[in-house]
Amino acid sequence: MRVRKRKGAEEHLENNPQYVILNPEDAKGRWHEIFGNNNPIHIEVGSGKGAFITGMALQNPEINYIGIDIQLSVLSYALDKVLASGAQNVKLLRVDGSALTNYFEDGEIDLMYLNFSDPWPKTKHEKRRLTYKTFLDTYKQILPEQGEIHFKTDNRGLFEYSLASFSQYGMTLKQVWLDLHDSAYEGNIMTEYEEKFSRKGQVIYRVEAKF
Amino acid sequence: MRVRKRKGAEEHLENNPQYVILNPEDAKGRWHEIFGNNNPIHIEVGSGKGAFITGMALQNPEINYIGIDIQLSVLSYALDKVLASGAQNVKLLRVDGSALTNYFEDGEIDLMYLNFSDPWPKTKHEKRRLTYKTFLDTYKQILPEQGEIHFKTDNRGLFEYSLASFSQYGMTLKQVWLDLHDSAYEGNIMTEYEEKFSRKGQVIYRVEAKF
Repeated sequence: MRVRKRKGAEEHLENNPQYVILNPEDAKGRWHEIFGNNNPIHIEVGSGKGAFITGMALQNPEINYIGIDIQLSVLSYALDKVLASGAQNVKLLRVDGSALTNYFEDGEIDLMYLNFSDPWPKTKHEKRRLTYKTFLDTYKQILPEQGEIHFKTDNRGLFEYSLASFSQYGMTLKQVWLDLHDSAYEGNIMTEYEEKFSRKGQVIYRVEAKF
Repeated sequence: MRVRKRKGAEEHLENNPQYVILNPEDAKGRWHEIFGNNNPIHIEVGSGKGAFITGMALQNPEINYIGIDIQLSVLSYALDKVLASGAQNVKLLRVDGSALTNYFEDGEIDLMYLNFSDPWPKTKHEKRRLTYKTFLDTYKQILPEQGEIHFKTDNRGLFEYSLASFSQYGMTLKQVWLDLHDSAYEGNIMTEYEEKFSRKGQVIYRVEAKF
């Protein structure tokens, strides 16, 4: 998600250490302590402006959520949403998705979400797709045995690629949705992109895959 | 595929033993002998009126094809197509898809196609879907190690189900197409259903999965 640079974004994040993890390296292995409970921890890699992570946090108060995005301005908008929601079970983390093992202990995360990730459609950029095998290596490490990735997107090419990538990595597809909004799936929380693209008539794809 | 009963269908098949295998049990383990060469053998389970198998036979003369359908009238229409095509590398077999091990030796088939199989949408009919695990047991046996199933359909529910079924069986998805007719895939031979449904604007799904 690309947004215009927001003035004061950095200060905004720094002024809210209750929600924004300012020293991510120190958090590794301490996430339950940070949340102050032993509830499961779910993360969203590429959390954008935070509609999904905030909505999920409100819907499921017994789960802890961490929204992860590398972009300063984007994360500052997510912070606005978290603050407005009043949810206490959500934190924000400004780090790169390829370096997650620096911030999470092995198996420390219970489930992870990828939503509307950058499709990087050119073959030469395959390695940048968040469902490329080197990313899966990272996710596998911080998830438990048989840990799950729940992924949705409107991008056909990325979804085709990701189904094959998960499968070829040895992951199992638990369930696939080829038109999420015209399905029996309940409790879907929409992301900003999802709202926008589905309004334009785009089909939304979803998969639950486990290691 | 359901069609009206065709008068004289049985005689039509019986009168063409060069193309129609009349004693299927005797063919087991003898397919290369029947074709008179050692070319690879590809089968289509549920070959309907034969547009796909005939088109494939003409496109790939170095491969032997067997169209399999249990319905007499349907198979007789396929025979018309085969006769009209002049293709020498295609045979027709009137047997049930669940009993393939009666007619093929282990590993005797090099690749198999499933096209526009009956979706059996009700959960209680799951076991009848040609991508249900008991069918996969059968296919696995007659295919070689890492043998492949190439499957296409317009039916969203069946495709969602089949991706998960293949994966949960331990098969690997080599490649997935979520809109075959709007893709880079070359040399596609359309089935009767595919012509009809794509003309109506239906998306065609395709997957190549290997054991």
